[in-house]
Parts: sequence; C-alpha cells; structure tokens
Amino acid sequence: MGIKEEVKMHTEEVEGIIIKYLPPEEGFQKTVIEAMNYSFLAGGKRLRPMLMLETYRLFGGESTVIEPFMAAIEMIHTYSLIHDDLPAMDDDEYRRGRKTTHIVYGEAMGILAGDGLLNLAFETALRAFETEPGNPKVARALSILAHNAGIYGMLGGQVADVESEGMPVGQEKLDFIYELKTGALIESAMLIGAVLGGAAEAEQEVISRVAKDVGLAFQIRDDILDVAGDQAVLGKPIGSDEKNEKTTYVTLRGLEQSAKDVEAISNRAIGLMQSLPEENPFLNGLLHYLIGRTK
Amino acid sequence: MGIKEEVKMHTEEVEGIIIKYLPPEEGFQKTVIEAMNYSFLAGGKRLRPMLMLETYRLFGGESTVIEPFMAAIEMIHTYSLIHDDLPAMDDDEYRRGRKTTHIVYGEAMGILAGDGLLNLAFETALRAFETEPGNPKVARALSILAHNAGIYGMLGGQVADVESEGMPVGQEKLDFIYELKTGALIESAMLIGAVLGGAAEAEQEVISRVAKDVGLAFQIRDDILDVAGDQAVLGKPIGSDEKNEKTTYVTLRGLEQSAKDVEAISNRAIGLMQSLPEENPFLNGLLHYLIGRTK
Repeated sequence: MGIKEEVKMHTEEVEGIIIKYLPPEEGFQKTVIEAMNYSFLAGGKRLRPMLMLETYRLFGGESTVIEPFMAAIEMIHTYSLIHDDLPAMDDDEYRRGRKTTHIVYGEAMGILAGDGLLNLAFETALRAFETEPGNPKVARALSILAHNAGIYGMLGGQVADVESEGMPVGQEKLDFIYELKTGALIESAMLIGAVLGGAAEAEQEVISRVAKDVGLAFQIRDDILDVAGDQAVLGKPIGSDEKNEKTTYVTLRGLEQSAKDVEAISNRAIGLMQSLPEENPFLNGLLHYLIGRTK
Repeated sequence: MGIKEEVKMHTEEVEGIIIKYLPPEEGFQKTVIEAMNYSFLAGGKRLRPMLMLETYRLFGGESTVIEPFMAAIEMIHTYSLIHDDLPAMDDDEYRRGRKTTHIVYGEAMGILAGDGLLNLAFETALRAFETEPGNPKVARALSILAHNAGIYGMLGGQVADVESEGMPVGQEKLDFIYELKTGALIESAMLIGAVLGGAAEAEQEVISRVAKDVGLAFQIRDDILDVAGDQAVLGKPIGSDEKNEKTTYVTLRGLEQSAKDVEAISNRAIGLMQSLPEENPFLNGLLHYLIGRTK
C-alpha cells in the first residue's frame, strides 16, 4: 500500500475519533453550532491530530486521554481558517471547493463560530482530566496547546503575516512567520503526543525540533510549488504569491537554494527521528510524505 | 465610607493584580499585543474579577492561585467587547469614551486581538497549576471558565441575541439570552472563587444561584433604566432599546412588573447569601450595589 492510501486510512481513523467531540446542533444557539460543525466537517487530511496520535503511539501511548486533544487541535486549526477567510482578513469565498463559513452563515456568525471553536477547543481538551484526573502531563499538554495557538504561537505568526502584506520582509521576520504560523500547531500536535505518551524531556526536545523542521520544509516546498509547480497536479493556480506581492522563502533565497534548503532541513528532521530509540513506521512515512520526499 | 468609594478601592486592588498578566509589547507580533492591552486597559470597574476574589475570600481563600483566573475572566470579558464592537456585529466606534479597538488598529487586528485575548485567558488561567500543581480544584475551575464562556455560556447568549435583532422574542428566549449573555460570566466568576476557596458542593450550588440572580437583576434594572432612567445620571442616551426595536424584559413584562421582579429576584439572591454560614461584608455590599438596592 502506498503512503497516500495509508494516510487516507488514517484520516478515516482520526475522523472517527474527533467527530465524537462535536456539539449537537440544538438549542437557541443552534446556528453557531451548525456553522462550527460546517467548518469542522469541511474535510482535509486531519494532519495535526494524525501527527499527534502517531507521536503518542511512538512513545507507547494507548489510552483515550489523547482523544480530546486531537479534537481540540483540529478545532483550533479550523477556527483559524474561519477567521482568516473573513472579509477583513483574506476575504475568501471558497475553501476546498466549498463556500466559506461567513459566506454561508454571514459575517457575524463567522466571527462567532471561530470564537466558539477556539473556546470549545479548550473546553474539550480539559475533558482529558476526566480520563486522568490530576495528571500533570495533561496540565502540561494544555499549556502547550494554549501557548502554541496564541500570540507566542500560531496567532503571532498570523499577525506578522497580515502586517507584512505589500511590504518587503527580511529573512528574520519570514522565519518568524513560518515558524509560528504553520510550525507552531505542528509542534503543538507532536509535542502533546510526546508529553502524553510519556517521552522523556530530551525526547520531547527532539520531537519539538523535528516538528519545527517539518513545518518549515512543508512551507518552503509550498513556496517552491507556487513558482515551479504544475497547476493541474496542485489543483490550485500557481504564481499566486507573486501576484499578491508576497515575500516568500523563494523570493529571498531563490529557487535553487530553496530546493537545497528543503533537502537539508528534511534530512535534519529525519536524522533526528532516527536518533530516537522508539519507532513508528507510519509516522516516518507520514513525515517523509509531508516534506515531499518520495523515497 | 460609601459603597461607591469601597468599590473604587477594590477596583484599584484588582487592577494591580490583573495587569501583571498582560504581555509585554514587543516582538514581531507587537501590534496585536498593543491592541489587546489597549482594550484591556480601557477601564471599567473590574466587577468580574472583583466578584471572583471576594467570593474566594468568603470561603477563606488566601493564596495567589486565584490571580491568574482573575486576569483570565477579565480577558474573556474584554475579548467579547472587542468582537461585539466589530462592524459585522454592533459596529460601535466608541466604548467608555474611547475609540474601539478596530477603529484604532483596523478590523483585521480587532479580530486577531479578540482571538488573542480569548486564547491568552486560557494560557493565563493554566498558570494556576504553577502555584498548585495537580490540584483538581484548578482543573474544575478551568472547566467552569471554558464552559461558561463558550456556546453553552456567554457566546451562546450572544448568538441568540444577534439572531433576535428586529425579531419578536418570547420570554423563554429572552431568559436564555439574559442568563447566558451576562449571567454566565458572573456565575463563572463567583463559582470559580467558590471552588478554589474550598466551598462544599451545596455551597457552590448556592453561589451559582446567587450569581444567576444577580446577573438577571442587573440586566432587568438596565432595561428599566433605559426606559425610565435619567440620561444625565446614566451618562448614556436612554430609549436606545426602543430605537433599536430590541425586545427587553420591560417590553415583555411592563415597567411595573419588571420593577417588582427585580425586587423579588434581588430578595431571593440576598436570602440565599444569608443562608451561608460564611460572611464577607464587602461582597454583600457589592451585591446590593449591583442589583441596585441602596440599603
């Protein structure tokens, strides 16, 4: 079985877990719940909860304590997409071929649905204490979840990105944006999996570095594909970054150097993973897949 | 000393505690932090953290574990005001005589500042585990914080309110809106204080009912003042609800009955407080003040 089919199977497994945490569409607040579920169920590979679960398994984790965290990180990812799509932000009408949340439910409900999902993420993750009351690992995982989603994580990267539009961006600021905007949630996913799975401190540090490298390689690869990719294969128009006058990794380092950098960063990530005594073949395949290596 | 002066002194005490939790305005994400702090520092009586602290003291609490929760509930209150003021919601340019956040920082930054504060609220409250690691009361308090702010609390009430604009609203729906939109955060404040202060289950139940009554009485009184108040004393225009075709408690029950109801609800709340063996004279004064009784 190829990695694509394997990922697909795991996506189904993850979906089965996370949808259990969606609220029923009832009560006077029904509309916002519909809007939240509409966005949450828009599909995607569920990479963040998948990375979380597989890192948890890498360290021998096998309890359901991980499940509310899997749902929570996908809720945070979804809320960020809803708010990114709003007219005051990227003003997008479509995402993954479906109308965006504010187009279907109106702008006020789009704002509230995003707020609702961010809040529900913490409400849901806190349910892990029902499985393991007083477990300090759960408390630590909650702190990672909050830290990496907020101003020192994903949201911080998003702010710097919004402010950079139409302006020249230097390498330091671009690194900041890349590390936080995409990297912070990937790090959150893998690190929560490691912490709850019982990884030692040094191993948590390795996982954290791997996750940052994977996030960075994933994003540089995206920049390269926007310049040099095949529109038919990508399923989206190429050249959008140049059109939007967006500074990317390729703008700053050039196409050739960017390709070399992805290779180096990917090799570093894979080397780090191999330094761990634990093994999870699917997780290795998934990481290779994310950073665009076919072998 | 009159209750107003007492409240003022306590506002200063609470401010001194909660501002310690504001993030420094630095880094590439500086603008959003400025916007968050601008909103947070816009003043107000800090009633929610004050109610939390005084309920905590009522049950004998005297540790700093309450402090991050005090900051967190004010962050949640502030985020809800920022998002309420957005053009897609109430579209307000001014609040407490200052320009609203999106007017000063732009709409995108207004959305992100609200998101940032909601996220920071949980990040901050989780710091209570630093003071008391593994304490199940902290876990319980976190769950109350999340539950009462989200779709089954404040946000749920806000959604029902937004959807009711320009539509006839029945008593059941109005009760839902009142209980959740204002009441849920007041209940959250007092209940977290009670839980962390070590109140027994039955006492927590009493506090929960008192908080709901106080929230309801506070809001009905606001409706009455909008019809029958003195603009000069209130410092805001009266008759705004009628102008906005807003169904209020007074619309449904009439002025006279509403006044009787406030009296009955207030008496019930005060009777419940008196049923507790513990005593905090300032908290009693504060509750009287909130529900508009001068004696």
